[in-house]
Amino acid sequence: MNCEEPIVAYLGPKSSWTSQAAEKCFPDVVEAVQSGKVDRGVIPFENSSNGTVITTLDTLSTSHLECSDLTIAGETTLKISHCLLVRSIEHGQITPPDSPAGAGTPADHTDQGSRSLDGSAFAELKRIKHVYSHPQALGQCREFLAANLPWAELHQTSSTAEAAIIASKDHTNSSAAVGSVLAARQIGLRVLLEGVQDVRENSTRFLVLKRDPADAPPWHSSRTHPEGEQRKLLVSFAIDQRAQGKLAHALSTFNKPSIQLTNIHSRPSRKSPFHYVYFVEIQWRAEKDGGQQLQDALRDLGKISQSRRCHGTWGPTLEW
Amino acid sequence: MNCEEPIVAYLGPKSSWTSQAAEKCFPDVVEAVQSGKVDRGVIPFENSSNGTVITTLDTLSTSHLECSDLTIAGETTLKISHCLLVRSIEHGQITPPDSPAGAGTPADHTDQGSRSLDGSAFAELKRIKHVYSHPQALGQCREFLAANLPWAELHQTSSTAEAAIIASKDHTNSSAAVGSVLAARQIGLRVLLEGVQDVRENSTRFLVLKRDPADAPPWHSSRTHPEGEQRKLLVSFAIDQRAQGKLAHALSTFNKPSIQLTNIHSRPSRKSPFHYVYFVEIQWRAEKDGGQQLQDALRDLGKISQSRRCHGTWGPTLEW
Repeated sequence: MNCEEPIVAYLGPKSSWTSQAAEKCFPDVVEAVQSGKVDRGVIPFENSSNGTVITTLDTLSTSHLECSDLTIAGETTLKISHCLLVRSIEHGQITPPDSPAGAGTPADHTDQGSRSLDGSAFAELKRIKHVYSHPQALGQCREFLAANLPWAELHQTSSTAEAAIIASKDHTNSSAAVGSVLAARQIGLRVLLEGVQDVRENSTRFLVLKRDPADAPPWHSSRTHPEGEQRKLLVSFAIDQRAQGKLAHALSTFNKPSIQLTNIHSRPSRKSPFHYVYFVEIQWRAEKDGGQQLQDALRDLGKISQSRRCHGTWGPTLEW
Repeated sequence: MNCEEPIVAYLGPKSSWTSQAAEKCFPDVVEAVQSGKVDRGVIPFENSSNGTVITTLDTLSTSHLECSDLTIAGETTLKISHCLLVRSIEHGQITPPDSPAGAGTPADHTDQGSRSLDGSAFAELKRIKHVYSHPQALGQCREFLAANLPWAELHQTSSTAEAAIIASKDHTNSSAAVGSVLAARQIGLRVLLEGVQDVRENSTRFLVLKRDPADAPPWHSSRTHPEGEQRKLLVSFAIDQRAQGKLAHALSTFNKPSIQLTNIHSRPSRKSPFHYVYFVEIQWRAEKDGGQQLQDALRDLGKISQSRRCHGTWGPTLEW
């Protein structure tokens, strides 16, 4: 399997790239990797504007995966560009972009925004009375929408894919969705405008998951970690919350020169209400000792915590 | 103002109780408190199954609030019960619950689940082909839906209120929403079944916000904190993430006998990509020293962090 092109499960078919959008899909990706149906799975982990994808943490911590040999093999960061999507000509009811759009139902408000748009796009904008998208995508395009579609009603959906489906079903042609080029292709919508997000730099880190049945722990020196290479590690743990100072104590185990805490989240343990599993993302360097400091930290954490799980360690190079 | 009944802004009008549901509403509640339009605001903070409401953290940390005199005055926990909502008789198209439902469009699958339901409810369930709700609500009712509506297609919405609106607009009467009694009343839907969540114990902590222009810091001994009373505090801070060990160092300031870290979250700082603001919820006790340990911890945190903000401290009694 190592010599062949790996089979990769990813979120493309759902035609949605925002985090919560793929909520239903994540367990499927994880399950596909775990069962061996695919060699690698890709799930979103963190967006530069919206933060960590909580669903990914929850999926990684589901109980049936606790004994899993699933591990994070790497990460990759994608730039995200939002598009304004409308019903495509395949539906037979939208005027092609280069034709006059006068036959539509122009909105009453024509005096605001959109001066920079060309005539045909502007004419098409005029007929949009409803814009659908995930709240995060709507939020990322707030200024564009206020300037160019001030008359449109904004509707929140659970995902950009869901928004695209709703827009594709509006036979009055007065709906648009904010979503991806991929969503446009898969749902059969047309990209009216590209890059409509307010902040140009909008990116999402994706994690690559693989099965790793090897016994050696991820920080072990027998694994090839170039000395001094900055690596990341995701670990989760639960503690006895009634015991005084346990969390501070647990976190202090990472207070070492070669280790840097970056990202911390508390998630419900699902064992009792308001009891948590803590997720910690770490940056660390394999020194000459082969990661002894990390090994010590994880050993100490294991003593302090009720349960502890390493979700993997990965370097800057994607290890397919 | 202290002697009168306070004016309270809350999320009721949006007829939605799940976290992200009120995404658009939180800034309004916070703004209403800050501007003095209302005396108190109530926003959801944490659900026992779904964890911390990230939108609340983001709203509390928005930059224009950094110099705010807004503070958390208390918390209150509500039990959450989900209902299956259908178009009400006011719409004139749904059979009343005590009438035969034979005139509807019964689904093909009648051989699964719902044995424990009475006949009329079962007949009504049969015509439901689509169920709408926020993914978290759908998730909390997964077993109920699988047992009683195995034929229905599940659709994610951004909120239970949005789901109720969609169901209310389906003139084929084949849609239902999972939502609250409040949503049913406000949107004009009928409660077909109550308490359809799989885990009976489902509760959300809400924070009560108020303006507090007093200069005294919240841990100050001049404030009346009964000695030994277990109180909570929410603090957020940013650090220089390039500096080695800063986060571990910052968190170690809370490593004191009278202080207990419980809940930690990293959120994007919005100043540069993948740079964070850390939110820490603390339990602490005002000892004879009037909270000196907490005062020391916050002073040290102030020295280590680039910015730091206390969002308030509150006790078990709601301080209206």
